[in-house]
Amino acid sequence: MKILHTADWHIGKKLAGFDLLADQEAVFARLVQVAQAQQVDAIIIAGDLYDRALPSEAATAVVNRMLFRLNRELGYPLLVVSGNHDSAVRLNTGRDWYQSTQLYLNTRLDQAFTPVTLGETQFFLLPYFEPVAARQYFADESLTNIAKAMVPVVAKMQTLFAPDKRHVLVGHFFAAGSAHSDSETRVNVGGLDAVAVGDLAPFDYVALGHLHNRHALNAEKIQYSGALLKYSVSEVAQEKGVYILDTATMTREFVPLAPKYEVQHLTDRYAHLATPDYYQGLDREAYTAITLTDTQVIPNVMASLREIFPRVIGLDRAHGVRLAQTPQVQAAKLGPLPLLQDFFQATTGTQLSAQQQAWAEQALTASQKES
Amino acid sequence: MKILHTADWHIGKKLAGFDLLADQEAVFARLVQVAQAQQVDAIIIAGDLYDRALPSEAATAVVNRMLFRLNRELGYPLLVVSGNHDSAVRLNTGRDWYQSTQLYLNTRLDQAFTPVTLGETQFFLLPYFEPVAARQYFADESLTNIAKAMVPVVAKMQTLFAPDKRHVLVGHFFAAGSAHSDSETRVNVGGLDAVAVGDLAPFDYVALGHLHNRHALNAEKIQYSGALLKYSVSEVAQEKGVYILDTATMTREFVPLAPKYEVQHLTDRYAHLATPDYYQGLDREAYTAITLTDTQVIPNVMASLREIFPRVIGLDRAHGVRLAQTPQVQAAKLGPLPLLQDFFQATTGTQLSAQQQAWAEQALTASQKES
Repeated sequence: MKILHTADWHIGKKLAGFDLLADQEAVFARLVQVAQAQQVDAIIIAGDLYDRALPSEAATAVVNRMLFRLNRELGYPLLVVSGNHDSAVRLNTGRDWYQSTQLYLNTRLDQAFTPVTLGETQFFLLPYFEPVAARQYFADESLTNIAKAMVPVVAKMQTLFAPDKRHVLVGHFFAAGSAHSDSETRVNVGGLDAVAVGDLAPFDYVALGHLHNRHALNAEKIQYSGALLKYSVSEVAQEKGVYILDTATMTREFVPLAPKYEVQHLTDRYAHLATPDYYQGLDREAYTAITLTDTQVIPNVMASLREIFPRVIGLDRAHGVRLAQTPQVQAAKLGPLPLLQDFFQATTGTQLSAQQQAWAEQALTASQKES
Repeated sequence: MKILHTADWHIGKKLAGFDLLADQEAVFARLVQVAQAQQVDAIIIAGDLYDRALPSEAATAVVNRMLFRLNRELGYPLLVVSGNHDSAVRLNTGRDWYQSTQLYLNTRLDQAFTPVTLGETQFFLLPYFEPVAARQYFADESLTNIAKAMVPVVAKMQTLFAPDKRHVLVGHFFAAGSAHSDSETRVNVGGLDAVAVGDLAPFDYVALGHLHNRHALNAEKIQYSGALLKYSVSEVAQEKGVYILDTATMTREFVPLAPKYEVQHLTDRYAHLATPDYYQGLDREAYTAITLTDTQVIPNVMASLREIFPRVIGLDRAHGVRLAQTPQVQAAKLGPLPLLQDFFQATTGTQLSAQQQAWAEQALTASQKES
């Protein structure tokens, strides 16, 4: 059986104020193409369908449409868990009806102990949960973090293992360390709340969401799918896509998904970036974070850059801004009107209008007459 | 066929700060008892399941549980439309799966033109909609209000009438006037946006939500169910409950539902309300709005009343508060310290503490010495 594994859709997320809904719908259309081209038998969505516990109506409509498309129009069985960005209660709406068309959605810990069997594989759908949920479920006050809670969770799942089936865990948590992970490693690598991969050994495969980097964990049978899109500048170098898992061999293949607009980070001199011969060779449509290596004040810099790169998502300086050599030297060199223009631009980000410049000239002339 | 008709649940509503979720769950349990005792075949919920477009997680969980109880646990077909208090987009979540168990839920105008047939009856489930939705759907810019929009809506539904069936409209709008209603009547009775009952004549029955008073409209074949509970002091005199519609005869019977706590409005003198022999005969557990007929300042009045009626939801005066005869007369009569106490109580609603009283006495003594 071939399973498409995706996670961390974060529908409704904005990137530096840019609404990504259209981008998310575009990459979703590519995900559908991959599912069809690969002739997958089912789709895993390992949490964080939404970016916020309280999604907008627009985001709600998009997620509902995506699930409808995959499950009702295309007929894929879906294996879905809620992530920490989802509201478990809100996402749970409709859950008990979804199973009628093989849309399996778990949002509560207790639901994870009813495995879903497709073909030769049992899927355990473990939603993101808080330690308190495990303390209540197992009546064990010592389960103070997810790492500790995962031990009885996995043990209980093992009691439900059908011996003639393969066993896949779908989860949304922070896994870290190796099979030999000890508490020190947990602290160092994954924090106190990271699940040691050794504790996941009973499963034939673990399909995870939560970390957006598909390379976040290096393990043979445990895989983060990574996010649907690059959701921050720190993810610039991360290729995004989906995994196709073959449950016969428990091996997976990564299939990249091209975004509508890329995310890029440019570090350069302003003059170079503003050179048409240069920037015309760049991806000007990308969401672009820019780090300028210049140190001087650049008039109207953000507006100028946005004329070249319409989707600027960040602007900073590699070496700071040197405001002036000394005010006296600069003033002597520039004269009062250019100095005023520079100051105005540096503080307001816009240039003096013709009228403002005329007023400034009048005032300067008048003051020079007086002195 | 017997159909239970309810509407305007407003789950999540608060009454003067009191959370009504437990009350709503209690009255819902009685609604279930009525459905079972009357052996109804289906249940109409005519809009405003939620009180807010953005319901809390707690309210979401309650509505989901109620729908699950009625439809999945008890097996009732449900005929549901969204109201103006619901978010159509959010309520639509799961809609396309719900039909698998005869939970018919419409939240968009276009969905209303696919009738649901149960037995010998066609049900047209018309959600609350804005005039702009009708303008778009019918490509007719003249549909500037619901009254105008209802004409093509009803006409289109008529084209879908199965001649051998009875035809019931479920809606959530403001119906007013008579079969002879003209524009003047519409303006006078129901405002510009009120649907004339004459326009609803093609239906054998119209089951409505929107107005909380089941007597809001006096028509033989058109009925508001009224709200699930008394949701404001103005609804004190309105008996709440559900209708049982017999589709063979298109006649209905009202069945009251007792609330967990009543809503009452008491108009009385404070001294009378505070008399144990009197108030012990009253429903002290009710949500209680109080109008005092007294005109004098009553120290600590709200706190005192809450000791008798723990659920005070409003306090006002029938004749205002007369603060004093004249300040001089009152001052002469009371002396400065009682006058200060009265003033403090009248303005802050609380009494001077022992420490505050001691300070006031010291200050008064000091000032009298000086004068």
